[in-house]
Amino acid sequence: MTKADFRNISVVLVNTSHPGNIGASARAMNNMGLTNLVLVRPKEFPSGVAIGRAASAVALLDNARVVDSLTEAVADCGLVIGASARSRRIPWPLLTPAQCAEKALEAGTNRVALVFGREDTGLSNEELRLCHYHVRIPANPGYSSLNLAAAVMVICYELYKTATGVDKEGAGPAEREWDQELATGEDLERFYRHLESVLIAVDFHDPENPRQLMQRIRRLFGRIRIDVMEMSILRGMLSNIEQNLRKRDPMD
Amino acid sequence: MTKADFRNISVVLVNTSHPGNIGASARAMNNMGLTNLVLVRPKEFPSGVAIGRAASAVALLDNARVVDSLTEAVADCGLVIGASARSRRIPWPLLTPAQCAEKALEAGTNRVALVFGREDTGLSNEELRLCHYHVRIPANPGYSSLNLAAAVMVICYELYKTATGVDKEGAGPAEREWDQELATGEDLERFYRHLESVLIAVDFHDPENPRQLMQRIRRLFGRIRIDVMEMSILRGMLSNIEQNLRKRDPMD
Repeated sequence: MTKADFRNISVVLVNTSHPGNIGASARAMNNMGLTNLVLVRPKEFPSGVAIGRAASAVALLDNARVVDSLTEAVADCGLVIGASARSRRIPWPLLTPAQCAEKALEAGTNRVALVFGREDTGLSNEELRLCHYHVRIPANPGYSSLNLAAAVMVICYELYKTATGVDKEGAGPAEREWDQELATGEDLERFYRHLESVLIAVDFHDPENPRQLMQRIRRLFGRIRIDVMEMSILRGMLSNIEQNLRKRDPMD
Repeated sequence: MTKADFRNISVVLVNTSHPGNIGASARAMNNMGLTNLVLVRPKEFPSGVAIGRAASAVALLDNARVVDSLTEAVADCGLVIGASARSRRIPWPLLTPAQCAEKALEAGTNRVALVFGREDTGLSNEELRLCHYHVRIPANPGYSSLNLAAAVMVICYELYKTATGVDKEGAGPAEREWDQELATGEDLERFYRHLESVLIAVDFHDPENPRQLMQRIRRLFGRIRIDVMEMSILRGMLSNIEQNLRKRDPMD
């Protein structure tokens, strides 16, 4: 997995009312590898509540830059993207969170600001005009107002995902580094033959009137991607069933 | 955009300590169109703190099903996916949030449970074994512990995104329904010729020694997707510059 380097990317929170949201945003940032937090005129900061909600991301609060205006916050930025939940009178170039991540990463070493507005009213029209793009998190039209830290979480998550290419590579080691080899097709065929003979032996399966039993069994086991250890367990079960059938056969 | 229908999908929170996380999870669910919340032995519920953090999603708390065990919570589910931050001794089929969304939607009308563990210790190994798949949110290896409601937010967001196909369709109306028609290629060529003649007139541009000026200008304006209104503003500016150049010409 590629290492994510977000040193040039800042999260800017404008006029945040609840310090808990500042702390939770810092935690979300840190979870996704972002480190630069800028606060524009926060209502209450520093704050014990923020520290509590930041959990292990307290360093982000310690290093947060506090400024007086959004203009000041984005003065050194080559790309400014503002979160916007509402439709605006003047349409603005609007990105999905995934497109926002691409734009931010394309910016290379240029400074990038991801701007989030107030809990109740978001960013003002004037603040939105300072942004090159707006980003909107797709949401239930009946209730599209995300908690501030939840919105920061989603945007940072998309950024991390895009930077590390995790969706292309799959979920991680467990998927690729299974602790056992998978059973081969030949193993499976031997298993199906073995199983069929046992099912016949126990009168569960009549080859003269097979219905779709074996197809269904193939469809079932085929979905599992059986590994060699599991296969030897299954084969062992079948063998033991067979042995016990023979023992109990009155003709023996 | 497709309507998301998540009536068969539940979010199951196991043994949640902080009622604020229950409320914030309900809000995140509602934002993404999910309605079924199941609580396994919550430490404190009902709770005023949960109601406060749920904001407009209080109905989800009112309708939450409270049960005694995860087994009971998932008894009627055909697909159970558990959130897991840690690597397990026995690897389990592991999904990314996007893959989790696909699996959940593929389940059709079967009941699906998305299971989230305790704030401090997550799901126990026994609980994780009740899950058909595990889902891991990609995160900074140095600090991968997401807040519970933040994890619910990410998983529900991926679900909504996949169900509505929003990434394929773009960010929404503003991108497609710009308030003005875009300028055509022909408009742009006329503009470049106009601009070039003005730049020559003001001795900024020497066609005998062009360097790469016009290419750079094309690259610049080409990125903007200029609309017809903006184009007429630009052309008007150029015309006015020309008129004023003629007025001040001492040979007139």
